Amino acid sequence: MAKTRVGIINVTGYAGVELARLLHQHPEVEITSVTGRSAAGQGVGVAFPHLASLGLTIEAKVGEADLVFSAMPHKESAKEIIPLVNNGVKVVDISADFRLKNAEEYSRWYGFTHPAPQLLPEAVYGLPELYRSQVAAAQLVANPGCYPTGAILALAPAVKEGIIEPDIVIDSKSGVSGAGRSLSLQTHFSEANEDVTAYALGGHRHLPEIVQELELLGSATTSITFVPHLIPMTRGILTTAYASLVAGKIAAGEKGKEELRQLYLEFYKSEPFVRVTETPPHTKHTWGNNNCLIYPTIDLRTGRFIVASAIDNLVKGAAGQAIQNMNLMLGLPETTGLEALAIYP
Amino acid sequence: MAKTRVGIINVTGYAGVELARLLHQHPEVEITSVTGRSAAGQGVGVAFPHLASLGLTIEAKVGEADLVFSAMPHKESAKEIIPLVNNGVKVVDISADFRLKNAEEYSRWYGFTHPAPQLLPEAVYGLPELYRSQVAAAQLVANPGCYPTGAILALAPAVKEGIIEPDIVIDSKSGVSGAGRSLSLQTHFSEANEDVTAYALGGHRHLPEIVQELELLGSATTSITFVPHLIPMTRGILTTAYASLVAGKIAAGEKGKEELRQLYLEFYKSEPFVRVTETPPHTKHTWGNNNCLIYPTIDLRTGRFIVASAIDNLVKGAAGQAIQNMNLMLGLPETTGLEALAIYP
Amino acid sequence: MAKTRVGIINVTGYAGVELARLLHQHPEVEITSVTGRSAAGQGVGVAFPHLASLGLTIEAKVGEADLVFSAMPHKESAKEIIPLVNNGVKVVDISADFRLKNAEEYSRWYGFTHPAPQLLPEAVYGLPELYRSQVAAAQLVANPGCYPTGAILALAPAVKEGIIEPDIVIDSKSGVSGAGRSLSLQTHFSEANEDVTAYALGGHRHLPEIVQELELLGSATTSITFVPHLIPMTRGILTTAYASLVAGKIAAGEKGKEELRQLYLEFYKSEPFVRVTETPPHTKHTWGNNNCLIYPTIDLRTGRFIVASAIDNLVKGAAGQAIQNMNLMLGLPETTGLEALAIYP
Amino acid sequence: MAKTRVGIINVTGYAGVELARLLHQHPEVEITSVTGRSAAGQGVGVAFPHLASLGLTIEAKVGEADLVFSAMPHKESAKEIIPLVNNGVKVVDISADFRLKNAEEYSRWYGFTHPAPQLLPEAVYGLPELYRSQVAAAQLVANPGCYPTGAILALAPAVKEGIIEPDIVIDSKSGVSGAGRSLSLQTHFSEANEDVTAYALGGHRHLPEIVQELELLGSATTSITFVPHLIPMTRGILTTAYASLVAGKIAAGEKGKEELRQLYLEFYKSEPFVRVTETPPHTKHTWGNNNCLIYPTIDLRTGRFIVASAIDNLVKGAAGQAIQNMNLMLGLPETTGLEALAIYP
Repeated sequence: MAKTRVGIINVTGYAGVELARLLHQHPEVEITSVTGRSAAGQGVGVAFPHLASLGLTIEAKVGEADLVFSAMPHKESAKEIIPLVNNGVKVVDISADFRLKNAEEYSRWYGFTHPAPQLLPEAVYGLPELYRSQVAAAQLVANPGCYPTGAILALAPAVKEGIIEPDIVIDSKSGVSGAGRSLSLQTHFSEANEDVTAYALGGHRHLPEIVQELELLGSATTSITFVPHLIPMTRGILTTAYASLVAGKIAAGEKGKEELRQLYLEFYKSEPFVRVTETPPHTKHTWGNNNCLIYPTIDLRTGRFIVASAIDNLVKGAAGQAIQNMNLMLGLPETTGLEALAIYP
Repeated sequence: MAKTRVGIINVTGYAGVELARLLHQHPEVEITSVTGRSAAGQGVGVAFPHLASLGLTIEAKVGEADLVFSAMPHKESAKEIIPLVNNGVKVVDISADFRLKNAEEYSRWYGFTHPAPQLLPEAVYGLPELYRSQVAAAQLVANPGCYPTGAILALAPAVKEGIIEPDIVIDSKSGVSGAGRSLSLQTHFSEANEDVTAYALGGHRHLPEIVQELELLGSATTSITFVPHLIPMTRGILTTAYASLVAGKIAAGEKGKEELRQLYLEFYKSEPFVRVTETPPHTKHTWGNNNCLIYPTIDLRTGRFIVASAIDNLVKGAAGQAIQNMNLMLGLPETTGLEALAIYP
Repeated sequence: MAKTRVGIINVTGYAGVELARLLHQHPEVEITSVTGRSAAGQGVGVAFPHLASLGLTIEAKVGEADLVFSAMPHKESAKEIIPLVNNGVKVVDISADFRLKNAEEYSRWYGFTHPAPQLLPEAVYGLPELYRSQVAAAQLVANPGCYPTGAILALAPAVKEGIIEPDIVIDSKSGVSGAGRSLSLQTHFSEANEDVTAYALGGHRHLPEIVQELELLGSATTSITFVPHLIPMTRGILTTAYASLVAGKIAAGEKGKEELRQLYLEFYKSEPFVRVTETPPHTKHTWGNNNCLIYPTIDLRTGRFIVASAIDNLVKGAAGQAIQNMNLMLGLPETTGLEALAIYP
Repeated sequence: MAKTRVGIINVTGYAGVELARLLHQHPEVEITSVTGRSAAGQGVGVAFPHLASLGLTIEAKVGEADLVFSAMPHKESAKEIIPLVNNGVKVVDISADFRLKNAEEYSRWYGFTHPAPQLLPEAVYGLPELYRSQVAAAQLVANPGCYPTGAILALAPAVKEGIIEPDIVIDSKSGVSGAGRSLSLQTHFSEANEDVTAYALGGHRHLPEIVQELELLGSATTSITFVPHLIPMTRGILTTAYASLVAGKIAAGEKGKEELRQLYLEFYKSEPFVRVTETPPHTKHTWGNNNCLIYPTIDLRTGRFIVASAIDNLVKGAAGQAIQNMNLMLGLPETTGLEALAIYP
């Protein structure tokens, strides 16, 4: 049977090259076209020697394909995608352009007027653990941001079951590849190495996405503080989130910790890429693969709920999840091409 | 005038070698004796080539000195220190053995019965920003832990002025040297590199110290959750703390952020080693020096107080602060020998 | 068809876990038994969460299998292997115990008397690029060391064709995982991070292996200096080697560089895992995969031959190459299970 | 007595900020003026928080001073310096613009016609270990490159004493800060982290400088191959150099190793910043200080001379050495302001 033809818009960023790496090994699809913002005409293997075996040339415009991934930056991505959607092509958008349901949020957080607000209701937020059936039926999937993926998966069971107060602190620690391949002083080796800092304390663009999804899961308006941190490593996001327990929902003491754990195990029992761990997760144990590791617990002294999650920001936080969505959209087994274990150490 | 003679008990750990490095450059003191747990008889420069110019031999027992630093692990440190204190020697203890006022906490958190509970009331908690005059008059100073130094300095103005609720989340990110020079799988290069994890979620030993000091500063019993994280870098601790603002104390909006900043600037206006910054601090900007950088702000969407602090865990978090305490105890200018700027990049 | 049953002796070192990771994804084999030096009785997923899906328990003694890998340290490995070989089991030994043809070298370099010198002649040095047909027919394969793999592949075409003088300097730079999972001060994070050093200047154990193979390739006795260096990264070995060109073999100037390149391309034209590059290779471009990248060139000012090679020390330098050998021994396509691209960035 | 007034041209690169850090702590000089290529008008502490206590504003043009350091890139530096030299100001040039004695080399290696070839003979190559008295008398000192500092100091005793053949391989491993603060893909964190590569195999600009100095030391024309490598750390250069021993100059065996060591000890016996070590040096042991550690040895199997040296590329390899030169030019003790020990770990 012929393989499904897929295209990658902007293969030259880190999400794009990761898509190419993973799709190259996918048994059911064939990459038929890749584009780049600047390197058009160049062989993929020239810019990215590890992708030499793809044998593809970077084009200016994406060619015919059954499904297209866009790894363009926000605003630019919508421009590329809208004509494809109008032509009936299936699209997974890795940018933020179709994640938010309220078009006004794009003016507020991204500084542009959304060019196709009518598509926002039909775009599906591509977190399969929450929207599996909708993804399977979608023509346009908005792949979640890296921070939101780790944060929402960490908090979803607790919010859905109403065991925590809607007043949540999310403290995330990200490897530097999350900032992309574009050069900046902040991601210059000598600046980022041997350093940690908090950033975007005035509000990070991934916040409205986290708020939107947690409010859809719970019943109350949430009061969420999200602070991302830059960590001297290439890949991985560890998210630690904190909230007060709603009184009377969970038992006191060690019993409550076990109840909480069971609640998470139950919530994620059928998920191929979520694992509830018995000890705090290490980002290293997700290096290069599509897993999200989650450890929920209770600080018994204060009765506070704590949850920690670990993902690879470029896999479950970007390209891997995009392929997971593609598998659903194409009716393939969800894990196809994503079976690789994490690389350790 | 003769220099003051100082000794270092257990020079062979990271706090000990850092003490030796800094004291070697101190104009008013002379290191006259250093001990080690295992390397007795060896030249300091053999184990630590960068200290070769000290020209000292590691001894089994500390020699005569006017002031002694102990960088022994807890429990062992008390054993070494008690006879010295009884003999009238001034001591700065870098271990935890005299930090907690309640002797029972040692059974609970450190698993031993304190051998000299009668010394606890007279030992001074060596955070000069809070206890300057007491340190100056003390015979025994308990040098604060690395995490508590960053956390307490970050929160002290807010707690003292009563502008935050006593329900606080402290999320700290530490370089690996904080775990010491003893070998462990957690600090093995290939395990710690390219990894982040949370640890001690059941309660870290530095928690009672943080609680003790914040409760002394404020009026209410505090409910503090403290979660430390291990980060792939050698030096530095970034602490991010979160709490709700007490209603009516601070203005709303940007005005409140400025009021908060002024409150911090006022609180630390005479402090030589604390700097209130205008942007979130980088641990890199404290690399090798004794500064604590603090950035307080408000998440305007939720009205939540956020503060971030950065220190070098081996300097302000250990050896540098110990020397700052020594300077006060000896009546020297507090900054003597600690003027070095951070090493960047 | 039933899968081939394979066992792993000492799965708990870095070569062992990497074997488990790669074999788990191999379509033609099934891991039926794994042993560990200390963790017997524990689930593999407890010690190594990323391997949880293996569902295996660490045993004290390897069970029945068609082919066994040994990732034991030298000397211990021979003890485990000899009975298996005598029982007709196929074995790939990742230790050094069967790499050297001259039994006396084991006394000299490893400090023990070889327990089965009669097996040395029949053991095949498992570098498929040099010994493909012998590996395919072997019962016992000695998997090359990580440094020798990178060095021999880099030098083989030049030595075989006699274009360089047999007076060679090999300067290698290795990530820390090459030193294994056993704890040591040298591999303690705070010691290895932000540091580079040369080691084993008195002679590294991988030297006799390099000498043996290069002398078998060339006609003259070689005079080889090999200096390994420890680099602050987890995976990867870059080897840079230097030698004088034999007069009259290669054209002068740029033409000679191109001749050299063609000679290498020709030598490795059918090799699935060797790629002759057009620019100096990065270890990052081999991260997690089985490739060896080689860049030969000439320093035109001095007429000196220079070659640089890059491998992942745990894949082509250990577990990946072991599986490549296994594929040959089992009559499988050589690349089976080893198709994964490098993970970048 | 009034302090000497010094200026820094281009304080905003890594050599410039390091000069500022070190000079700020120098007891005999005062920084009176600093310039930057782009940040003119900005406070130094805005761009570089760790230098906030300098209290200086970045100017467009350097102000009046007794001695000026230029940390401008090559070609630009000469332009700034020539008028100063003509006005009798003492200058230490950290760029390459006055290092090479042969003006034609600037066309060949740097691609520009030297604007003041008449100054080349009078400019002193600022390696105090070789040119102490000339530096002391100089008006214009050309501060050596980082790689040449480590390589020349490593080889000088052997070349001067004629114990090695003039056919030398120099393999250097540098931290990323050596590539400066300007952004590039090669120094982007996610690219440089977990990677090692060789570069400039066609000839690095520091080569003519190394050749010039080694030929001045020895009697023969040298045939030098120099290959630099980029290592994932911020600071430090380790240089490993290889050459054949001249027959009959050094005893065979262990005795020869000791003779070699004595020769080095004798050569550097009065040097405050050079230390001949008993084991291979670690760059970590020079972190932040002005030392050069050197370990000479012999590979007894091949009779080959090997030497390894370690420096901090921004201190002994740039700013520290510039201050050492300044001290000599001003008649101050050579070590003034450079006494700080290395920061470990």
